[in-house]
Amino acid sequence: MSASVSFADLWESLLPIGKTDTGYRRYTWTAADMRCREWFTTHAAAAGLSVQTDRNGNLWGWWDTAAGPGRRHHAVVTGSHLDSVPDGGPFDGPLGVVSALAAVRLMRERGCVPTHPIAVTAFIEEEGARFGIACLGSKLMAGAIDADAARGLSDDRGITFAQAMEECGLDPEGLGRDDERLGMMDAFIELHVEQGRALAPLGCAVGLAEGIWPHGRWRFDFGGRPDHAGTARFDDRNDPVLAFAQTALAARVQAGERGALATFGKVNVVPGAVNGVAAAVHAWLDARAADEKMLSETVTGVRYDAQGFCDEHGVSLDVRQESATPVVSFDSELRERLAAVLERHGQGDVPVLPTGAGHDAGVLAARLPTAMLFVRNPTGVSHSPAERAERADCEEGVRALAAILEDLAC
Amino acid sequence: MSASVSFADLWESLLPIGKTDTGYRRYTWTAADMRCREWFTTHAAAAGLSVQTDRNGNLWGWWDTAAGPGRRHHAVVTGSHLDSVPDGGPFDGPLGVVSALAAVRLMRERGCVPTHPIAVTAFIEEEGARFGIACLGSKLMAGAIDADAARGLSDDRGITFAQAMEECGLDPEGLGRDDERLGMMDAFIELHVEQGRALAPLGCAVGLAEGIWPHGRWRFDFGGRPDHAGTARFDDRNDPVLAFAQTALAARVQAGERGALATFGKVNVVPGAVNGVAAAVHAWLDARAADEKMLSETVTGVRYDAQGFCDEHGVSLDVRQESATPVVSFDSELRERLAAVLERHGQGDVPVLPTGAGHDAGVLAARLPTAMLFVRNPTGVSHSPAERAERADCEEGVRALAAILEDLAC
Repeated sequence: MSASVSFADLWESLLPIGKTDTGYRRYTWTAADMRCREWFTTHAAAAGLSVQTDRNGNLWGWWDTAAGPGRRHHAVVTGSHLDSVPDGGPFDGPLGVVSALAAVRLMRERGCVPTHPIAVTAFIEEEGARFGIACLGSKLMAGAIDADAARGLSDDRGITFAQAMEECGLDPEGLGRDDERLGMMDAFIELHVEQGRALAPLGCAVGLAEGIWPHGRWRFDFGGRPDHAGTARFDDRNDPVLAFAQTALAARVQAGERGALATFGKVNVVPGAVNGVAAAVHAWLDARAADEKMLSETVTGVRYDAQGFCDEHGVSLDVRQESATPVVSFDSELRERLAAVLERHGQGDVPVLPTGAGHDAGVLAARLPTAMLFVRNPTGVSHSPAERAERADCEEGVRALAAILEDLAC
Repeated sequence: MSASVSFADLWESLLPIGKTDTGYRRYTWTAADMRCREWFTTHAAAAGLSVQTDRNGNLWGWWDTAAGPGRRHHAVVTGSHLDSVPDGGPFDGPLGVVSALAAVRLMRERGCVPTHPIAVTAFIEEEGARFGIACLGSKLMAGAIDADAARGLSDDRGITFAQAMEECGLDPEGLGRDDERLGMMDAFIELHVEQGRALAPLGCAVGLAEGIWPHGRWRFDFGGRPDHAGTARFDDRNDPVLAFAQTALAARVQAGERGALATFGKVNVVPGAVNGVAAAVHAWLDARAADEKMLSETVTGVRYDAQGFCDEHGVSLDVRQESATPVVSFDSELRERLAAVLERHGQGDVPVLPTGAGHDAGVLAARLPTAMLFVRNPTGVSHSPAERAERADCEEGVRALAAILEDLAC
């Protein structure tokens, strides 16, 4: 079996799962997610891996050394996630899992014999699309979120994480920091489709991550007073839609003048009567910046502006931080070793890129050496059905990942 | 039984139906609506009325003359609606139905003998909260909407009006213009809680309607391109939230400078990912003005501005008018007769008010003499759980309505 056939086979078999007319909807602990998990189990086993689910629901496929499964330490782990944002594309997450399985098959084909165990992982709820906290599976494992807090997270319909996990036949009692498993790992390498468009102008199929911008989510609640759209005079209104509109525009200015990013992508206007002034707007600010000072200044600026707009409209404002991820610098020693492998492999001088996107590798970077390998995104679009990567670049990613695993583990 | 006991009894018995923690949700053809309809049937029968449902699902309670139910013509009809906006208050609609039943009881108590039939009505889907078209019950009866179009209207979950009506045991095949029934009516009087706050400064408990501002609903679809909130540069984005935000603020300016009203109270941002640039914003503009030229200029101004914002952001714009209601001038002869009755009744010089709100009486005004009686709203707030009217004013409204019915029908 050639690498290209292997990647294509794996890729095509996953592609139909969770696909809708408007993009992928692979949310954690749903039927689509169960099918993704079944896909992982089947194809990891077919690649000769021993499959297990850890206490936090993350999936693992082990390629043990001759010493057997009793000696899982100094392991080299690679993988990503299978869940999607609402109406997402097929690459963000799955490319890393499919490429990891394809790399294992390529290494087996070449007759590699690992001297360190190799594991392929799929972390749960990386996007936070269902329960609101991004990188939940890796955060639980790393102890970056309290197990009780995670169990109590609820989705839009009020179903808790614990209930949803139980419905899938897994026990939420086991959730939480997993030092034993972290202790098995020497390194974690995550392959991911590039988000943004830095590699294309450089003519490079793959790149390495330098670090992840600090970022966070803030919930803005604008509380107005519902009224009749046909009778309430403008001066008598407390319209939260107007205060939100001004805030959304101010966020663009506050972030733009600092070179940061600020986005309102989730906005709920309630109760949603066409002929009524809204009662409230609940809006989530996603903000990111090159350093924590810039991030903090950006969010402070947006909050200050929002308070002014709310005062102007007689609208109440409540702002709560829902998540915060500090700056991540990936391990420089590991990155240099990977760069040397890729150079020997014929990639030349591999570009090293910063990114504004959070990843499980960023969470795990606090606990062990981690690195990320990006595969060129020709348009830069991601978190969208239009997200794409060329097949040849994906196959180059598989070969690069296989070379890295061989260097680190064989 | 005194009038005050009668109104209070009726009012209190309806109050719990469809009440939620955030306000009333009495949507057409739902369980809450079924309970409202059952309430009508019970209390109309208790007031000695013969209850029937017309082909369009509207409820009628008849007080026939000595000639019996075979001679229902030259009837004087009064009523309003029982459905609510999302998270509405208890008065908008129900006050007119409860007051009509209370007025009938008061007239019976006084020994009135009608020489014209009197009917109490409750029209369906006046708010358009479930199926999107306001005053649907009266529009169907008056032939102001096509029966097939009405049958095909669907709610947020894709259930059609016809399906929902059938689920409630009524036959949607009978929907449509009902000239026979319109031919029975000499006049329609709708009592309604005031929306706005004109009566309070004048010290008046009741007022009469002059006319209804022309108004309509326009759906604005802003189509962007979903992307990653952490990696897509501002310059590369096509963010529909920003184009919508600018449009919402422009609508306020366009309407404000003309003395018109323009409101975005229903806004859907999709797909709603916290870490994603939105794909689209669907927003409904409710616009009203003193005359049709001013209304048209306001909406044209908002559309023009919106197109400019969309061009700036590379966002597509599609605007469709979903409903339009021309200016309504209530029958001046009927209004003058009512004013004379109320003056004799001790109300003094009754204020005559314009309104920006649509009503079933406005729809029926195209087919027969109609009038509206407003009961003072001390805060002016409506379409809100905070909407209210004093009990004494409501009871004054019942007495005024009874005096009017007695004058017209006895």
